[in-house]
Amino acid sequence: MKIIVVGATGTIGKAVLEALSDRHEVIGASRSSSDYPVDILDQSSIKKLLESVAPFDALISATGQARFKPLGDLSDEDFQFSLANKLMGQVNLVRLGAPYLTDNGAIVLTSGVLANEPMPGSAAISLVNAGLEGFARVAALELPRGIRINVVSPPWVSETLAARGMTEPQGLPAATVAKAYLKAIEEPITGQVLDARSFV
Amino acid sequence: MKIIVVGATGTIGKAVLEALSDRHEVIGASRSSSDYPVDILDQSSIKKLLESVAPFDALISATGQARFKPLGDLSDEDFQFSLANKLMGQVNLVRLGAPYLTDNGAIVLTSGVLANEPMPGSAAISLVNAGLEGFARVAALELPRGIRINVVSPPWVSETLAARGMTEPQGLPAATVAKAYLKAIEEPITGQVLDARSFV
Repeated sequence: MKIIVVGATGTIGKAVLEALSDRHEVIGASRSSSDYPVDILDQSSIKKLLESVAPFDALISATGQARFKPLGDLSDEDFQFSLANKLMGQVNLVRLGAPYLTDNGAIVLTSGVLANEPMPGSAAISLVNAGLEGFARVAALELPRGIRINVVSPPWVSETLAARGMTEPQGLPAATVAKAYLKAIEEPITGQVLDARSFV
Repeated sequence: MKIIVVGATGTIGKAVLEALSDRHEVIGASRSSSDYPVDILDQSSIKKLLESVAPFDALISATGQARFKPLGDLSDEDFQFSLANKLMGQVNLVRLGAPYLTDNGAIVLTSGVLANEPMPGSAAISLVNAGLEGFARVAALELPRGIRINVVSPPWVSETLAARGMTEPQGLPAATVAKAYLKAIEEPITGQVLDARSFV
């Protein structure tokens, strides 16, 4: 399959690229890419990427930011940033990407376990993750031509925690998280939220 | 208890007002109210309402709109409207309302079963409902002074369906939906999504 990975330079994106590259033709897109640059906040940038690669068989989003802050500190701008970025950025990848996908193609988005497992500080992130999953469940019913859509829900990723200075091994390695994307691409499932922890 | 109901003139709001008014002092706010006007899209309007009524023991939101359309017909504006109205309108009621609530006060928001039960046309509504529930689960952990927050998730309401011309009795009567709000206000629960169908 020919697969676009948006967010290819991120911790998860890199691992997904590696997991897919044995068996598939993988195109890594990211904000900083010179070959396949994309800014998910900018619909014309998304369209330009899609048109330059089309047709393709799968579109993976391993990107999107949202703000982690105590509820009382989350500003209007924090909410707007989170909605525009991790939520609508990924929703727009679906809306704009579907027409370019081959029949029976696949889309995979990224939420996170905070959607259903709240913690202090995660109000904006949990909102965005849960909203994305709600959207994807409907998109699975409506996408045309057999196109499937699933969401991978990762926990904290080991490499991210290590980069933030945690010395004890914690979280799930990105390579394990990547297995969930592989399943979402290769198995005939749709409308599912795949908890990456079940791939240990 | 002194309770504000935002959306007091809606189908659910009216039923909630009636269910509460036996035992509580209830203030009905709505866009069209002459005594307690409020526009949830306008933070200064929300603040004005809250200041005019404060202090109060509970804040119920039975308001918020989102667009129901086939996925391919949902425009950028449809998504932005839905996010600003039913999602951030209610989130802002929480953010702005919490400081005015008495200790151990209660907040109740309104989502809908489409959050987890997708149907064609509900992409924006399911996104908004699920996102609101994700937000409330976190707010429950962070709200100060024992303030509780719960979400009522109604199905289609009988009166709404009848008004749209459905002749067969369908949906859940608003009076039954109202029981969920009563439970959320009067019982010591927090961080819950109450499926209104369990109050039949």
